[in-house]
Amino acid sequence: MAHIKKMVLPTGFQFSGTHCGLKPEGNKDLAMIYSEVACEVVGVFTTNLVKAAPVIYDQMIVNGGKPVYAIVANAGNANACTGEQGAADTQAMAKQTAELLGVAPAEVLVLSTGVIGLPLPMAKVREGIKTAAGTLGQDAWLDAAEAIMTTDTRPKFASVHGAEGYTVAGFAKGSGMIAPNMATMLGVLMTDAVLTPEDHARVHGVWQQSFNRIVVDGDMSTNDSVLLLANGVSGILASETPGFFEALQEVSTTLAKAIVQDGEGATKLVQVRVEKAAQKTDAEKIARAIATSPLCKTAFYGADPNWGRFICAAGYAGTDFDPNRATLCLENETEQIKLFDKGEGVAYDESAAIALMQGDAWSVVLSLGLGDEIDWVWTCDLSHEYVTINGHYRT
Amino acid sequence: MAHIKKMVLPTGFQFSGTHCGLKPEGNKDLAMIYSEVACEVVGVFTTNLVKAAPVIYDQMIVNGGKPVYAIVANAGNANACTGEQGAADTQAMAKQTAELLGVAPAEVLVLSTGVIGLPLPMAKVREGIKTAAGTLGQDAWLDAAEAIMTTDTRPKFASVHGAEGYTVAGFAKGSGMIAPNMATMLGVLMTDAVLTPEDHARVHGVWQQSFNRIVVDGDMSTNDSVLLLANGVSGILASETPGFFEALQEVSTTLAKAIVQDGEGATKLVQVRVEKAAQKTDAEKIARAIATSPLCKTAFYGADPNWGRFICAAGYAGTDFDPNRATLCLENETEQIKLFDKGEGVAYDESAAIALMQGDAWSVVLSLGLGDEIDWVWTCDLSHEYVTINGHYRT
Repeated sequence: MAHIKKMVLPTGFQFSGTHCGLKPEGNKDLAMIYSEVACEVVGVFTTNLVKAAPVIYDQMIVNGGKPVYAIVANAGNANACTGEQGAADTQAMAKQTAELLGVAPAEVLVLSTGVIGLPLPMAKVREGIKTAAGTLGQDAWLDAAEAIMTTDTRPKFASVHGAEGYTVAGFAKGSGMIAPNMATMLGVLMTDAVLTPEDHARVHGVWQQSFNRIVVDGDMSTNDSVLLLANGVSGILASETPGFFEALQEVSTTLAKAIVQDGEGATKLVQVRVEKAAQKTDAEKIARAIATSPLCKTAFYGADPNWGRFICAAGYAGTDFDPNRATLCLENETEQIKLFDKGEGVAYDESAAIALMQGDAWSVVLSLGLGDEIDWVWTCDLSHEYVTINGHYRT
Repeated sequence: MAHIKKMVLPTGFQFSGTHCGLKPEGNKDLAMIYSEVACEVVGVFTTNLVKAAPVIYDQMIVNGGKPVYAIVANAGNANACTGEQGAADTQAMAKQTAELLGVAPAEVLVLSTGVIGLPLPMAKVREGIKTAAGTLGQDAWLDAAEAIMTTDTRPKFASVHGAEGYTVAGFAKGSGMIAPNMATMLGVLMTDAVLTPEDHARVHGVWQQSFNRIVVDGDMSTNDSVLLLANGVSGILASETPGFFEALQEVSTTLAKAIVQDGEGATKLVQVRVEKAAQKTDAEKIARAIATSPLCKTAFYGADPNWGRFICAAGYAGTDFDPNRATLCLENETEQIKLFDKGEGVAYDESAAIALMQGDAWSVVLSLGLGDEIDWVWTCDLSHEYVTINGHYRT
């Protein structure tokens, strides 16, 4: 399995990205992804009770289990809380795309991201879809990746080419509202491997350990969607190629971490890892409590080894643990600094701890001393810039 | 019942506040409250699994049901995660105070607030207790209120004198880590009414609707405690004086709202009220989700009527509601502006909505259209200043 830093594309996919006027500043805001061959599709969606129109539409298509050919995506407007008009607009986007590509409307998926509650300016969208369908090509994948961005500062993409001859590639966007069970996240993955309905559960498992292990601010969006299109062109059967799911994990993990690193105002990537838990779900709950706590996140930002805040957040996570059996460390690739051991702080080198926390990427490791289970989330810090971005998003 | 803006003190209480060196900047950091007559005591404490030494100690005393005479409180050090030494230090604080006041150690309660995980500098604390016991007086209540402050920018106090002849008074401190079920909050209430064990449940009920209805940042501290000392000197029976619990509610509500208004970096007080819920607990869950969401809180800060964020947070609150039956309004004392109705945004006057949100105090009102239950929380916004305070708390 060759790990390639630049983008390698699976065979048979075409892309485009264009500006149709949804982003006032003139950036690309409409993307299209098209496979020449019908695709098996796997999808996961926000668990928010309030779901955007395209999420409801896509869930219906994905649950139907029929093949699809294309995805049309817009940024700048979430088409959420837009009532019957929103549902009609999503269907119109699929229908127009289908007509231009010569497929059926139910063979086109729709993604939207952006501000909630404003009607889609459909005249612009229709113009964008027309342009996007007319400019499809293999080389335009970066245009597509850019066109789904909102407050992202850079496009996020990853790919792995397997020695057996298949490729997995994907792009994604964040970057606020990233929370438990996905959030304002769109992920589009493509492969030329052969995927069958029996493989879906393993794909879901991969996403549980990647897209579902990231927290930016604890908010969960109305629009989160991750889709995998598998056109099978390589003839390689995913189910008989163990490397395939590793490749999918690598692409998904790379994209998930990239979302956190580019979280709104984020200055660092922090893994919160909980070890030696009695149950995996306990470990996850505690990791999420620490990763979501504004006090912990501002301590990450300030590079303040204020472990009391981490222990305190663990204490209200809603799961049982005994601080008198727990230890807490900071960790990066080269060192580990213990701050807390069995109910009390321990002497540690404060300046070394601060230096570690000033790094770009490091871990908080809480060991509960109760069992053998482990779980983690990736998160970022809470900075002045986060407040600036979100205090003035629309105005 | 006369509502008096300045502090009226119940008969028989003395106070002091002094600086003993726990706060580096030289502010008062040790408080004492003493009643000449033994007091019935009611207390509520953090539900965090990780409890500071004084919380564990006080819970034991309060649960014992015996009368108490005094409270000794320090700020600048939480005495949390300090192991056996922490427990011994709490006991030493009670013992020294008891000796100086001529009461039993078990008749003294202890409060601590500040940084977690550092041992109490007991030499300084002992000096402070000595000074505090020697300077007790009725007029020094403001010294005591100031001495429990941490990042609070002002002391918080309130009192009500009942026409029947009793008085309820209290002071409190915030100001980060204010969350579901209390958080770095200390509240000390005093009355000269007669309280019996049978009245405790009503006191708890009052605090459910005041101290337990505030959210600053969603973090819950290891040290939260609210105590009411009732010395009975007025001879007025609380249980036979309906006005008493109204007075207690007023004092508690005033203090709770003052904590939110002075939340770390807070620029405004926002009530999040959920109406027409099928169940009160549903209303509370949704109100807390909105009040805790960083995206909603930054929208409060930026005066951005971005109702999509509020609806979105309601959607992940973990309780059932139907956005197609819901309405959302902004509200202050003079006007109500509807932003969302039955699943969609409605046309509204954007500049009027922004102006309303720029006010000091206003409400977000979400009506679910499902039943007759109502609940609310008070919260504040998330500002640049919050990040500044908490990114650099210790360093």
